[in-house]
Amino acid sequence: MTDDALVIFTPSGKRGRFALGTPVLTAARQLGVDLDSVCGGRGICSKCQISPGYGEFPKHGVTVDEDALTPWNAVEERYKSKRGMAPGRRLGCQARVMGDIVIDVPPESQVHKQVIRKSATERHIEMDPATRALFVEVAEPDMHEPTGDFERLKRALAEQWQVEDPIADLALLSRLQPALRKGEWKATVVLTKGNHDTRPRILEVYPGFHEGGLYGLAIDLGSTTIAAHLCSLTDGTVLASSGLMNPQIRFGEDLMSRVSYAMMNPGGDAEMTRAVREAINALARAIADEAKVDPKAIFEVVFVMNPVMHHLLLGIDPVELGQAPFALATSGSLSLDAADLDLTNIHGAARVYVLPCIAGHVGADCAAVALSEEPDKSDEMVLIVDVGTNAEILLGNRSRVLACSSPTGPAFEGAQITSGQRAAPGAIERVEIDPVTKEPRFRVIGCDLWSDEPGFAEATKSTGITGICGSGIIEAVAEMRMAGLLDAGGLIGGPDQVGTQRSVLFGRTHSYLMHDASAEGGPKIWVTQGDIRAIQLAKSALYAGARLLMDEMGVERVEKVTLAGAFGAHISPKHAMVLGMIPDVPLSKVVSAGNAAGTGARIALCNVGARNQIEAVVHRIHKVETAIEPRFQEHFVNASAIPNAVDPFPELSKVVTLPDVSFNTASGGGEGGRRRRR
Amino acid sequence: MTDDALVIFTPSGKRGRFALGTPVLTAARQLGVDLDSVCGGRGICSKCQISPGYGEFPKHGVTVDEDALTPWNAVEERYKSKRGMAPGRRLGCQARVMGDIVIDVPPESQVHKQVIRKSATERHIEMDPATRALFVEVAEPDMHEPTGDFERLKRALAEQWQVEDPIADLALLSRLQPALRKGEWKATVVLTKGNHDTRPRILEVYPGFHEGGLYGLAIDLGSTTIAAHLCSLTDGTVLASSGLMNPQIRFGEDLMSRVSYAMMNPGGDAEMTRAVREAINALARAIADEAKVDPKAIFEVVFVMNPVMHHLLLGIDPVELGQAPFALATSGSLSLDAADLDLTNIHGAARVYVLPCIAGHVGADCAAVALSEEPDKSDEMVLIVDVGTNAEILLGNRSRVLACSSPTGPAFEGAQITSGQRAAPGAIERVEIDPVTKEPRFRVIGCDLWSDEPGFAEATKSTGITGICGSGIIEAVAEMRMAGLLDAGGLIGGPDQVGTQRSVLFGRTHSYLMHDASAEGGPKIWVTQGDIRAIQLAKSALYAGARLLMDEMGVERVEKVTLAGAFGAHISPKHAMVLGMIPDVPLSKVVSAGNAAGTGARIALCNVGARNQIEAVVHRIHKVETAIEPRFQEHFVNASAIPNAVDPFPELSKVVTLPDVSFNTASGGGEGGRRRRR
Repeated sequence: MTDDALVIFTPSGKRGRFALGTPVLTAARQLGVDLDSVCGGRGICSKCQISPGYGEFPKHGVTVDEDALTPWNAVEERYKSKRGMAPGRRLGCQARVMGDIVIDVPPESQVHKQVIRKSATERHIEMDPATRALFVEVAEPDMHEPTGDFERLKRALAEQWQVEDPIADLALLSRLQPALRKGEWKATVVLTKGNHDTRPRILEVYPGFHEGGLYGLAIDLGSTTIAAHLCSLTDGTVLASSGLMNPQIRFGEDLMSRVSYAMMNPGGDAEMTRAVREAINALARAIADEAKVDPKAIFEVVFVMNPVMHHLLLGIDPVELGQAPFALATSGSLSLDAADLDLTNIHGAARVYVLPCIAGHVGADCAAVALSEEPDKSDEMVLIVDVGTNAEILLGNRSRVLACSSPTGPAFEGAQITSGQRAAPGAIERVEIDPVTKEPRFRVIGCDLWSDEPGFAEATKSTGITGICGSGIIEAVAEMRMAGLLDAGGLIGGPDQVGTQRSVLFGRTHSYLMHDASAEGGPKIWVTQGDIRAIQLAKSALYAGARLLMDEMGVERVEKVTLAGAFGAHISPKHAMVLGMIPDVPLSKVVSAGNAAGTGARIALCNVGARNQIEAVVHRIHKVETAIEPRFQEHFVNASAIPNAVDPFPELSKVVTLPDVSFNTASGGGEGGRRRRR
Repeated sequence: MTDDALVIFTPSGKRGRFALGTPVLTAARQLGVDLDSVCGGRGICSKCQISPGYGEFPKHGVTVDEDALTPWNAVEERYKSKRGMAPGRRLGCQARVMGDIVIDVPPESQVHKQVIRKSATERHIEMDPATRALFVEVAEPDMHEPTGDFERLKRALAEQWQVEDPIADLALLSRLQPALRKGEWKATVVLTKGNHDTRPRILEVYPGFHEGGLYGLAIDLGSTTIAAHLCSLTDGTVLASSGLMNPQIRFGEDLMSRVSYAMMNPGGDAEMTRAVREAINALARAIADEAKVDPKAIFEVVFVMNPVMHHLLLGIDPVELGQAPFALATSGSLSLDAADLDLTNIHGAARVYVLPCIAGHVGADCAAVALSEEPDKSDEMVLIVDVGTNAEILLGNRSRVLACSSPTGPAFEGAQITSGQRAAPGAIERVEIDPVTKEPRFRVIGCDLWSDEPGFAEATKSTGITGICGSGIIEAVAEMRMAGLLDAGGLIGGPDQVGTQRSVLFGRTHSYLMHDASAEGGPKIWVTQGDIRAIQLAKSALYAGARLLMDEMGVERVEKVTLAGAFGAHISPKHAMVLGMIPDVPLSKVVSAGNAAGTGARIALCNVGARNQIEAVVHRIHKVETAIEPRFQEHFVNASAIPNAVDPFPELSKVVTLPDVSFNTASGGGEGGRRRRR
């Protein structure tokens, strides 16, 4: 028998020879195997669980004896009896190598585990959070070698965790002495890694070994809604997702009206800053309650948002963003104290990371989409569209990425639409119109039946049928066009022209009656000529932005379209293409990315390396400014028609070639806009 | 004629050949000559003034023609007419080299000027402040290359001043855009250098070229008084010095009673923290008013103080400092935001530097004394004594430095003395007692006459004679001993024993009547037996501390004694040695360092390199803990006698050999303590 043994780790395949008696955790560390430990091998945290394999391993060329590890010991027994441990598992810090051995590191024992989330958008994120918990044993004070408690804590972190020269704020220094004494010179330190050339920072010191988790918030701060995910910083789990309305809406529905509010009202920007910070505090409290997590265990917040929201959150007057050249006060990423943003409901030393902005109209939300969707790593030429009140558009592949923003307005969100409403039970979300009878059928949120199926009336009794949401209005307009109710210029034909009494004249234009719920005390749901115009403007802006990027890139076609945001999750790609919102690609090449901005925020929360990555990518994204580009106006005007193309979707039997009709009436003919041919 | 020329700078002697037409400032920079410039050579700041020399310079081997520089130009003329400029001066950025030339850089044009201060303690300090003003021209925003204003400011600082990647707080970012636009993309940036591995930090951005100065406060935060110097960060000038009582006195006269207050009263530490921070705010405002300086132009504050004051200022409960092992929460230096200390009267982004503490009883004030007096650079074995309510004692030379603190109590400051008072007009500060008649004569603060000189009564009429200050009581006790009024044990003899009716029995002990002002409505001024005991305790503590360090160092004698603090400035070294406060050295080897702690604070304020220096020195100072050292008690007891040595000062004719008497009375004999012989 030799006095060392071969240790092979799976799945990494790393191997090495170690002196008999070496703890498995030590062997793993020396080989650089990804095996977690919070307590540093003291048998407290159980993060270093391993699965030893016994018997023949022909693939590795070893035979593992039953006594290849030291026997199950009292520390392991105590842990198992108190917390439970899966059969066959050992603690890597307790089991010592006594012979050749094959050791599997199960996924949950890996620091850089791949986490798959079921809630929120499903997504693999490699865990490498900025903030982690470290257990340390600190030397007691010695009158003859006087050093401060903080200096001895730093020495312990350096010796036990190779953490060099961390900083701490005064509040931590004021808590340090009682904590170390209460824990009898053992403590769990919550530490945030240094970023760039900043030093690591101690956020909290808990007496002894601290069982509680560490949490973070990924916040997508939109003009209309504030959405947050509460995530574990240990394993990336999304414990709760929640949102609320942005209270700044009372100062202006869209971004430019908020900029105007700031310009017209002295102190108006500070008022909006206060409102949004209060809302985030409330949201943090609510989401922690929902997940039954102590809000003071929230140590990190990542923000993504458009430039105006960015400035208003930070307390910077957004006035420069309202006028050319749209100069940001700062475009780089920001690492801040949560206290700087008055986020007082979470841990007092919590840190904030704000993703970089790309330009004055293309914000950190677009950077987050780029982080999530990685156009810079795509082989295909991909168009990524994230529609909120503004559309953020990215186009590119691994050679080059372009970005722009386009002012679509709120129509895609169902706002400023006659019968429009937010996506909520009772809202029409899917529409079909029979091209022969011109009769609609639809589905409403909260009910799986179509309106012409048995039981629909009963099933929608409780919610009623209350309006049309964003995805519903897009389908309605596209279906109206396909059913010949609209001409290519977007004009609704009269009852005689289109052959249905659902077309009704109001003033000088017609409206289409989608549903009459007045018998049940509900509304009449119309699609008016004004609604068509609003959708035309929105889709023209979106399409023109995409075209502008294609011109700049020098391509006539894109190979893939990714739809992000609520839009992406609920819209029918077919109808979007009929409307001409996005360039034509095969339907199989249109994918939904869900809430990509939120996903980007979660990635930046869970993986500190991703922050450096997106900062580098943002530097390489070339910004195209729509506001001053004459071709944008040109594309915009050309895009206002609803194409009478050959069927772009031959695979869909229902779609017919669109009629090239024009309703040349006294009231509407002049408004038809130029036709778009391609 | 060649196309380059020899340029010689004095006083540095640096020389080099430069192409004709090279600006003198450029030549100076390339040679590393210390020539100031704030505006970077744009003819705005006039900091680069030079004195060209013409004619024969045999020492340098050159002849300088009248046309060796380009002629006086319009920029120089404009500056001279607006601000004035000394004859013969040129602006280094305007004058260009056209022939061999000798150029003197006057002291005020040097960045690292040696400044001699007349007020405060006179002291050479090399200027190298952490905070300086830099004029920059910032690129305007460009829609096609979108970057934030802050990012363009950073690029300007990198390109124009080689400042890499500075940070700024949100408040600055919120002011940045208006400032850059108001200054038409020219700005004066107030920047603090990075310390260690921290990044430089932008504290303020003024539109255009900012004329106002930058200021700093050096604060010596004592248990009893808070003293501040307001200094220019440009040239180190002390513009004002001011002080006020530490309002924490109401919570306890000495440090340990404040620690007790914190222990006994929940929230008591926070109460004391609030009090001292408010006082510093008030002091900052007052000193700025006195110097007619905008308090918002104060960008830096340096603090020195003992460990208890250190913790109470920082908001840390000092309870651990009240009991062995006297653990500091933190001993290292601290770089903080002034806002963290609620210092709201100065600039909102001002920075604070706190010198490191040496140990739980030896604070940042002692570190400041070490920075000022540099025992670590002394060839002689020097004893440095800084007496406040505690004495900080340093002993060492370039091989080794020891430190301790000794609890002298407040007697040396005139507190807890029967007729004691603070040093103020009317206080007796100098005393002589005739060894034959036993009659005293004295001087009071505010009058240059001795009390037996003609005109004294008239001159002191306005102030009266109100008490004895710290230096007065020390001289009184020493003179009483030398006049035979005290025995070696410190007992005051009765009138029959010492031959004067000024010795009066009160209870069981005698008191000596120094002065009777009762006829004029003033007090009778006594030195009581209790006063002698208080002084004996204080001086024993001081002497025992010094002896302990000498034991530890293994030396029997010191070569030099430096007296620091108010004590050092006013005490008579001869009387201090008669009393046995300090070890014997030749009188010529006793020097006063004035307010060395305050000087150390000023050095750290004006020279950022000194901060690294003292941090390194503090690591090397070996701390000796008096509280647990049995030899300290032994030295303390042995030191309580007042020595009857041979005259230590033969050069002073007046001093006589002290009588070896002992007043063996019923009341006092037992208290005489052991005699100290040497």
